[in-house]
Amino acid sequence: MQLYSYFRSSAVYRVRIALNLKDLPCDLVPVHLLKDGGQQLSAEYRKLNPGATVPTLIDGDTVINQSMAIIEYLDETHPRPPLLPADPGGRARVRSIAQSIACDIHPLNNLRVLRYLKRELDVGDEARDAWYRHWVETGLRGVEAMLAASPATGRFCHGDTPTMADLCLVPQMFNARRLGCKLDDMPTVVRVDAACRELPAFERAAPANQPDAE
Amino acid sequence: MQLYSYFRSSAVYRVRIALNLKDLPCDLVPVHLLKDGGQQLSAEYRKLNPGATVPTLIDGDTVINQSMAIIEYLDETHPRPPLLPADPGGRARVRSIAQSIACDIHPLNNLRVLRYLKRELDVGDEARDAWYRHWVETGLRGVEAMLAASPATGRFCHGDTPTMADLCLVPQMFNARRLGCKLDDMPTVVRVDAACRELPAFERAAPANQPDAE
Repeated sequence: MQLYSYFRSSAVYRVRIALNLKDLPCDLVPVHLLKDGGQQLSAEYRKLNPGATVPTLIDGDTVINQSMAIIEYLDETHPRPPLLPADPGGRARVRSIAQSIACDIHPLNNLRVLRYLKRELDVGDEARDAWYRHWVETGLRGVEAMLAASPATGRFCHGDTPTMADLCLVPQMFNARRLGCKLDDMPTVVRVDAACRELPAFERAAPANQPDAE
Repeated sequence: MQLYSYFRSSAVYRVRIALNLKDLPCDLVPVHLLKDGGQQLSAEYRKLNPGATVPTLIDGDTVINQSMAIIEYLDETHPRPPLLPADPGGRARVRSIAQSIACDIHPLNNLRVLRYLKRELDVGDEARDAWYRHWVETGLRGVEAMLAASPATGRFCHGDTPTMADLCLVPQMFNARRLGCKLDDMPTVVRVDAACRELPAFERAAPANQPDAE
């Protein structure tokens, strides 16, 4: 398998954790989102990923864009250890936590969005950082409420083994810390994130530990 | 089952189509996103949906937020007709098309985001509409390329029966038309959307046909 990756992309970070948890060998192909005007925008890369986003996973003849689609694919084709629980209610809970991050927080703070704010709307650095923190803090407070309210929360977001929800949470928390978001009103989120980062599969997937890290 | 719904929300629209395709009875509970300062923000609703978004599905003791998590749950608990293909590669393709819309387009044009642009960043109506159209057109051009390039595309996004990809595409196209987005360079997207809307399950789910429509 090959994974088109950028060290700091939190969408790719999710997939790197999945590959590590499942102990799947995979070649990383770096796609630098800032160099050459954005390598993801090249005609060659767009053949693999028409939306010009990372990640892209290649597995034989199968080419997959979108991190959650890739994680579900890896879970279906390499079921051990599972990244989703077995029961439909549990699976729905894990997916809804994952999507609360991957749909409601992350897309608003993508590089291309921050660029649009600056270039097209003339938003200054301070207001742009406030935008970033607003969506992270609002979104993660929702995740905190979901986790704190439920007996299904364990050492990790759902029970005592990592699931797709944790794969989305940890990269989002990495970004939250990087931008100085306020996290002191979300103790469950902070605890689960810390528990995940004790696992080598999460640690090895971190941006600083990638071959293309700067 | 109960579905907390707002007629114009494209996330709920996706779920309404799924329920109709599977012929599942479900009570709609209206949540007005504009009235009372936003009914989704009430303490009572937040107990069901801490992120204060629509939809929420209640099925017995199971409470699910996030439209794609709900659709996957409905597909697992009521498999006929399936909304995902059987093979992992096909499932990944359908999910990646769905997520290209639900993660890369829709979140940027949510009501709360448009409000933030206006209230916090003082973005005028014209620039706000340009923002809206930019993300729709950029994102749907990516979807067009995914559909046009693949022999897996049929009458619908994937083959000749509707899948979760179509459930995401049709509501996004409804919004695109409403905001006057340029669609003439995406013939496959336009064709698939039209084919979907010929089906009663899609038609009955449309915003204008909801009990809370204005």
